[in-house]
Amino acid sequence: MEKWNGNAGTTSAFAMPDWMIQFADQKQEFNKRPTKIGRRSLSRSISQSSTDSYSSAASYTDSSDDETSPRDKQQKNSKGSSDFCVKNIKQAEFGRREIEIAEQEMPALMALRKRAQGEKPLAGAKIVGCTHITAQTAVLMETLSALGAQCRWAACNIYSTLNEVAAALAESGFPVFAWKGESEDDFWWCIDRCVNVEGWQPNMILDDGGDLTHWIYKKYPNMFKKIKGIVEESVTGVHRLYQLSKAGKLCVPAMNVNDSVTKQKFDNLYCCRESILDGLKRTTDMMFGGKQVVVCGYGEVGKGCCAALKAMGSIVYVTEIDPICALQACMDGFRLVKLNEVIRQVDIVITCTGNKNVVTREHLDRMKNSCIVCNMGHSNTEIDVASLRTPELTWERVRSQVDHVIWPDGKRIVLLAEGRLLNLSCSTVPTFVLSITATTQALALIELYNAPEGRYKQDVYLLPKKMDEYVASLHLPTFDAHLTELTDEQAKYLGLNKNGPFKPNYYR
Amino acid sequence: MEKWNGNAGTTSAFAMPDWMIQFADQKQEFNKRPTKIGRRSLSRSISQSSTDSYSSAASYTDSSDDETSPRDKQQKNSKGSSDFCVKNIKQAEFGRREIEIAEQEMPALMALRKRAQGEKPLAGAKIVGCTHITAQTAVLMETLSALGAQCRWAACNIYSTLNEVAAALAESGFPVFAWKGESEDDFWWCIDRCVNVEGWQPNMILDDGGDLTHWIYKKYPNMFKKIKGIVEESVTGVHRLYQLSKAGKLCVPAMNVNDSVTKQKFDNLYCCRESILDGLKRTTDMMFGGKQVVVCGYGEVGKGCCAALKAMGSIVYVTEIDPICALQACMDGFRLVKLNEVIRQVDIVITCTGNKNVVTREHLDRMKNSCIVCNMGHSNTEIDVASLRTPELTWERVRSQVDHVIWPDGKRIVLLAEGRLLNLSCSTVPTFVLSITATTQALALIELYNAPEGRYKQDVYLLPKKMDEYVASLHLPTFDAHLTELTDEQAKYLGLNKNGPFKPNYYR
Amino acid sequence: MEKWNGNAGTTSAFAMPDWMIQFADQKQEFNKRPTKIGRRSLSRSISQSSTDSYSSAASYTDSSDDETSPRDKQQKNSKGSSDFCVKNIKQAEFGRREIEIAEQEMPALMALRKRAQGEKPLAGAKIVGCTHITAQTAVLMETLSALGAQCRWAACNIYSTLNEVAAALAESGFPVFAWKGESEDDFWWCIDRCVNVEGWQPNMILDDGGDLTHWIYKKYPNMFKKIKGIVEESVTGVHRLYQLSKAGKLCVPAMNVNDSVTKQKFDNLYCCRESILDGLKRTTDMMFGGKQVVVCGYGEVGKGCCAALKAMGSIVYVTEIDPICALQACMDGFRLVKLNEVIRQVDIVITCTGNKNVVTREHLDRMKNSCIVCNMGHSNTEIDVASLRTPELTWERVRSQVDHVIWPDGKRIVLLAEGRLLNLSCSTVPTFVLSITATTQALALIELYNAPEGRYKQDVYLLPKKMDEYVASLHLPTFDAHLTELTDEQAKYLGLNKNGPFKPNYYR
Amino acid sequence: MEKWNGNAGTTSAFAMPDWMIQFADQKQEFNKRPTKIGRRSLSRSISQSSTDSYSSAASYTDSSDDETSPRDKQQKNSKGSSDFCVKNIKQAEFGRREIEIAEQEMPALMALRKRAQGEKPLAGAKIVGCTHITAQTAVLMETLSALGAQCRWAACNIYSTLNEVAAALAESGFPVFAWKGESEDDFWWCIDRCVNVEGWQPNMILDDGGDLTHWIYKKYPNMFKKIKGIVEESVTGVHRLYQLSKAGKLCVPAMNVNDSVTKQKFDNLYCCRESILDGLKRTTDMMFGGKQVVVCGYGEVGKGCCAALKAMGSIVYVTEIDPICALQACMDGFRLVKLNEVIRQVDIVITCTGNKNVVTREHLDRMKNSCIVCNMGHSNTEIDVASLRTPELTWERVRSQVDHVIWPDGKRIVLLAEGRLLNLSCSTVPTFVLSITATTQALALIELYNAPEGRYKQDVYLLPKKMDEYVASLHLPTFDAHLTELTDEQAKYLGLNKNGPFKPNYYR
Repeated sequence: MEKWNGNAGTTSAFAMPDWMIQFADQKQEFNKRPTKIGRRSLSRSISQSSTDSYSSAASYTDSSDDETSPRDKQQKNSKGSSDFCVKNIKQAEFGRREIEIAEQEMPALMALRKRAQGEKPLAGAKIVGCTHITAQTAVLMETLSALGAQCRWAACNIYSTLNEVAAALAESGFPVFAWKGESEDDFWWCIDRCVNVEGWQPNMILDDGGDLTHWIYKKYPNMFKKIKGIVEESVTGVHRLYQLSKAGKLCVPAMNVNDSVTKQKFDNLYCCRESILDGLKRTTDMMFGGKQVVVCGYGEVGKGCCAALKAMGSIVYVTEIDPICALQACMDGFRLVKLNEVIRQVDIVITCTGNKNVVTREHLDRMKNSCIVCNMGHSNTEIDVASLRTPELTWERVRSQVDHVIWPDGKRIVLLAEGRLLNLSCSTVPTFVLSITATTQALALIELYNAPEGRYKQDVYLLPKKMDEYVASLHLPTFDAHLTELTDEQAKYLGLNKNGPFKPNYYR
Repeated sequence: MEKWNGNAGTTSAFAMPDWMIQFADQKQEFNKRPTKIGRRSLSRSISQSSTDSYSSAASYTDSSDDETSPRDKQQKNSKGSSDFCVKNIKQAEFGRREIEIAEQEMPALMALRKRAQGEKPLAGAKIVGCTHITAQTAVLMETLSALGAQCRWAACNIYSTLNEVAAALAESGFPVFAWKGESEDDFWWCIDRCVNVEGWQPNMILDDGGDLTHWIYKKYPNMFKKIKGIVEESVTGVHRLYQLSKAGKLCVPAMNVNDSVTKQKFDNLYCCRESILDGLKRTTDMMFGGKQVVVCGYGEVGKGCCAALKAMGSIVYVTEIDPICALQACMDGFRLVKLNEVIRQVDIVITCTGNKNVVTREHLDRMKNSCIVCNMGHSNTEIDVASLRTPELTWERVRSQVDHVIWPDGKRIVLLAEGRLLNLSCSTVPTFVLSITATTQALALIELYNAPEGRYKQDVYLLPKKMDEYVASLHLPTFDAHLTELTDEQAKYLGLNKNGPFKPNYYR
Repeated sequence: MEKWNGNAGTTSAFAMPDWMIQFADQKQEFNKRPTKIGRRSLSRSISQSSTDSYSSAASYTDSSDDETSPRDKQQKNSKGSSDFCVKNIKQAEFGRREIEIAEQEMPALMALRKRAQGEKPLAGAKIVGCTHITAQTAVLMETLSALGAQCRWAACNIYSTLNEVAAALAESGFPVFAWKGESEDDFWWCIDRCVNVEGWQPNMILDDGGDLTHWIYKKYPNMFKKIKGIVEESVTGVHRLYQLSKAGKLCVPAMNVNDSVTKQKFDNLYCCRESILDGLKRTTDMMFGGKQVVVCGYGEVGKGCCAALKAMGSIVYVTEIDPICALQACMDGFRLVKLNEVIRQVDIVITCTGNKNVVTREHLDRMKNSCIVCNMGHSNTEIDVASLRTPELTWERVRSQVDHVIWPDGKRIVLLAEGRLLNLSCSTVPTFVLSITATTQALALIELYNAPEGRYKQDVYLLPKKMDEYVASLHLPTFDAHLTELTDEQAKYLGLNKNGPFKPNYYR
Repeated sequence: MEKWNGNAGTTSAFAMPDWMIQFADQKQEFNKRPTKIGRRSLSRSISQSSTDSYSSAASYTDSSDDETSPRDKQQKNSKGSSDFCVKNIKQAEFGRREIEIAEQEMPALMALRKRAQGEKPLAGAKIVGCTHITAQTAVLMETLSALGAQCRWAACNIYSTLNEVAAALAESGFPVFAWKGESEDDFWWCIDRCVNVEGWQPNMILDDGGDLTHWIYKKYPNMFKKIKGIVEESVTGVHRLYQLSKAGKLCVPAMNVNDSVTKQKFDNLYCCRESILDGLKRTTDMMFGGKQVVVCGYGEVGKGCCAALKAMGSIVYVTEIDPICALQACMDGFRLVKLNEVIRQVDIVITCTGNKNVVTREHLDRMKNSCIVCNMGHSNTEIDVASLRTPELTWERVRSQVDHVIWPDGKRIVLLAEGRLLNLSCSTVPTFVLSITATTQALALIELYNAPEGRYKQDVYLLPKKMDEYVASLHLPTFDAHLTELTDEQAKYLGLNKNGPFKPNYYR
């Protein structure tokens, strides 16, 4: 789920160090659970994103009393099928209503269903998917199905499945293998159940994090003979693919949907602009007005956080390593400082760098009482949370996702989500943002599935600019927005096709 | 001078139509003046930018009474040299003070002078330049000189020379050939005087618009044998270069400084954010609060204009052809409309598209009384001003750069700068912005001049990312901004060099 | 709890209709419960505010299983006292921690405790209070106690008591009579237990809504002989007092703390600026960017809502009846419309008028599918919710505080908090805001209690300007804000005392 | 002209020191010119405002060559009248066009002309006026005339007259006595020519600064027998009136139009929000983005300046003496500091306090090189400019209104308008703002002239709230703004008249 922060702060997409992604060369044991979930280990078995908790409200209904593992249950949907594994098929009705609500805010997918209904561009497609299982994903899956595809699905995160939605999908006949709170063994078992089926073999992969792709590479490499392409959503997964490609081991075309413009701007700038406020309010009920905040990193995520907090009356300082982003911060009206300069005076520290140990124990020692510390960046390494696990400090869990870390002199630091992503842990992601992502995924699948032979080689591709523009155009009606069309004369003058693409690929 | 709006609106850098740039294949007569200055003609001889008026305050002192052509004058500077041609060498002292003021706001060039003073990286360089001649250019030229270069200079625009500054440069020994109000014949004469010198041959070109490059290509093609490279500043010039390159006729490396990040963001987004307000105020003294404005085009220029006007309490509508920019406009809080929908109600119409005939006579007919119409975009074609030159409409010049066009029923449209660039005609460009541009030019010259053989081929190059970052870093002290440095551990984690570059080249 | 919105929209403080406040002349039966809580009834017995639900998170811990009425329980605190009535004394420890957390954000009260500790300005004061019982109130009560006062307390709202906090206060020895979910009979019983005590008679009243004052007037009018003054917090209560005063029936001085500047600006402008976003997000998870919103009323509340939504990228329209506020809306960049003009196109409708039937059934009929409707104004009359209780419409409760009202054609309107105050029902109020209010209350009590005879007559007073300024100054250290002091010379020049007051009373 | 800043910063309207206004008790000689214009002198004879320069663009055409005093000229208008004294009657045509342009932006006065044309509410009124003579004033005068009044007019400032406009008025038959660059003797001579006429005696006074009123008090006290009232515009004039009233010497009713809501908000908050940017740009061409600015005083003027600069990307610090304004600054997102804390680091210092010596020589000594210093406040005392007139400092005038003050070590301070009001000296005031003021003046004249005997005593009155609202409503059509009307039911519910007034008088 790093996807929400793909371009966070100062991380270069292409600067990912080799050792992060080297799974292709490792001999891993997939069924062993690492001793500590969430720690980066050499014998890393599942992507870190799959253990990040997804949301404080990750389940609509309470089913905590049911301790039986779904793998041990016998369940059938109303049509008699048992080709699924979910927490409780009886929650289907509740899940269905959530899906219906989501449909109302995913106009592009609904439009796609209508437009493409006649021609079924995915007829014959057998898609195996591994993503978060939410109401929005359900809308995507049912759209793919309406376009002609057969789907089998697993979760890309052991915590993020909404059991009710999974139940609704299972009830509708989708072979879904996912529940909230899977063990790592469950995780791989579910993925395996998706691909290891008699009489059915996938020809398309939709992945979020690369675990599914990885599994097929390791266990069923022959499957790639029939696979037409991979659509990958996350930063991590995309980089695994680039590594494979670099090593000459990528054997099918792959589409990097993480780096499309709409996704980047929406998932990072616009979405974080809202979720930073939401996450802070829900956890602390603090007032923004007059608060001093330091935001580490002025990439898209940092820009969104800074803009929102400034607009709410906070006084915002920025730290940066890149002089260009630094100059942007200056021009946007933020004092550019080193963290040390302001650490004693700020009320809130927010990291959005994609880097590690940006907030160190030394910084934490110098913060003032009641200072709030949280992370909007790439992973939970930006704040050195581990350094706070020392005997002289007391941890007090005051609310869900909120810890007070107490110094011997009584000073308290308010740590949110234990340094994991605030917007995933403590706020919700608007359906509209997910709609853009899901539409992009659907279009990428259609493109890869229908591309004439030779258009795509065994490499990693960005979504063609024109499709990116198409995704955007499908979302304009939501805003009752009216696009202007070029006249023939103007198109000629500009040397553009009237239907786009209108910008070079690198336009951001 | 399109450079301030290079990425205006929806223009793709690479979508420039062929016929705009085809000079390489034409037989042109350079000494004939077109019947009407400023009109695009097939046998186009000087770039359009060279006839755009530069600034309403383009001369500090009044010298309107002196009608003698500088070419007919005999002038010497105090050291006895007469290798220059300026309006009036006696204005040197005034010009010198303006240069000194500019120096205070061009910290990067001054820093460059200090740092590079020892090693003289431009020792041996013979630079011929063709740019606007302003105090800021003077600081650039004197910096190049301090770095070891010899310079000869002409103006790239017949109106934009500040005579006092030209005088000061001449007094200091620079062979400068430029004055405000050159004829077209003067224009080429001045350029020729720069290059056609006995015993001196340029080995570097610094151009803004491509006219100098063009002249050398036509008249002295052999000169290129000694030329190490071209640094080009403007959109137009850059595209001429790309055309040459495409046609296999570019015979030296060229550096495109127009598309560097800092320049793009500063010249367009940040600079236009300020100059739209300034330009409107100086011409009309209008109040922004509560005014309804439509901005055509939501590229960097449009984004800057919209942000500023919204911040001042205007109600802003946006038109766009590109769905991605359109969606950005929506998320930024602007109603996306077609021009027709709001044309009757708006108080101000601003074009920033790079397109032509965006505002047509039909639109102008439907505007309400007192509507202000102006252009912040690429050239003077965005508003169809020609269509207003009909007998039934009365033109009344009410102030410098302000015309009332009066309909038979008494309705008045307030047309600014006759549809030319508002920010060039009616506001000033902050020295700080020019500082970034000038620093980039200086670094590009140094890079090309010192590059080991083979680093650059006969092609058009973007400034290396790292240099772009260096330009930015030189401007941070102005803001008392403190950059954070990566630790070794962090650099390793991110896979970055501690000194950058920090982002991929396409980062914006 | 209308207090957060005292100056909402276009309501004039002095324009309250007579019939709203005429309790002094009515014969009411206080122990009968109206058939439907929350409906305005002619024989209105408790103020409406006392039945508005306070917060979706109004209890920290779950005690839903305990159905015994607190009135039927025998409870003692650890010191053996049973002079209190709360839900469960055993929850005291949890409540104490919440109080301690609140203390950290109520610096002014804590400072007051320290400063006034020596002199005990409330020594001898016997204060009976009727307010919301929250952690913040607890900090106030313990401050009053530290200043020398004895306190007895009841709740001003049948839903708003935090049981854990009430338990903590009882454990600390405060006679508190309050729990969440009182019946109306309970409500008056609790108030009576506060005042009807053998051997103890109050000499100060702190009221929020006027119910306590009302009760004493009705049941124990003789008590007023010993009462030195009333401090009233709410719009409703204040108007009741003005009515009494007008009718010549007010027999002690009363302090109107509702209309102090700090309270007005904080409770309305600054607080609503944040809570509108919070309330909408928590209930709907919607994205603000690009949404079209109409805000009815541009008073302080409306100004706060508009500013926040505009800052988050919404497109905001405003309706107003007052031309001055209307002109302010224009200058602040909002289109001023009649509701009818935009009702078909907006995504969100927010009322902040203090008026009634601002959003009618006709408007609701014309809204588009998924339109969100909510109220930030004075009371639940602004949206004509009653008109939606017709057979052809289906109500569906989709989340706590969120109803879908479904038209026969499938159109859904999303109604929040059934038209009651969004910020009370669906968001939390920052402690910092409550700190300002509580400090003002404490100072008003001190002022009235210590005022020399004759300073205050039997009338309603505003807090002296200087005290208002004092409250503000006590909150500045929170922001590390440093006030400038006048020199003697400057004070003389301005004709001001160096310690204030600095502005006329009417300054806003 | 202090009027634009009446409520600047922390000045209380009623805190004006006695000695400023005590003219009623002084024996002054009016015909002596003080040795130095612009210095406050004990025997102060004309109000300071009358010597502040009005605008850098105070004359449209150049008439510097004509040195003859208008008093020595013989001029007649085309109808043969010579009852006027202006610079050059031949400039009438140019002036007329400026008046016509102004008419287009003064919709309320034009509407007033139309509405009141039938009934002539000022029939019989003989108005003597003393204000700035600008195109906007001309629209006011011609409106008064259209409503039935006879007018005679002088200038309230020796520099502010636009000669062309004065000529146009004289040509149209108005007895106008004013020109740019009057001596003090001229000043009083002009006023005298307005009132000392055979066969004509004023019955209404429209004053701006109190000089006209003062003159009549001193020279023609008997005139007050026929005078129905005074309308006064400026802070200074209003306070003189309050002083007279306090001393029992005010012998006619007076209307204080300075303190009407619309005027306050427009002249201060909204107007300064725009003019601070305009004034800084026109004088220095500086870039706002990233600049550090300290604004002294957070009253309406300061709020406007801060909002604009923050919006343009400056980093703004605020100083305040009033804790309430200070808390507002905090909540609005500004660091509240003492001037000393930031004086070394800021790029710009702006005073808006109404106080004196806010910026002292000590501060000036500590500023960094190139720091810009200017005043938006009450008068030219806020910056201790006098302290810079010492031998070791060099003054260099670099542009009109821009001085460099140079320290021995080379440090330069950029002082704008010698510390006088920046917005009057270096920017223009939008016609729309003047329209509000002029409309208020017209309505006040109508009200006083038509008021039934006894409605107004010999006292100073605020404009009735309802009229204030009327002025606002007349300006709404400019914004195509549509006011909502209360239903009968709603009006009853709110206890309001459907036509207003809608707010208490003190509403701001």
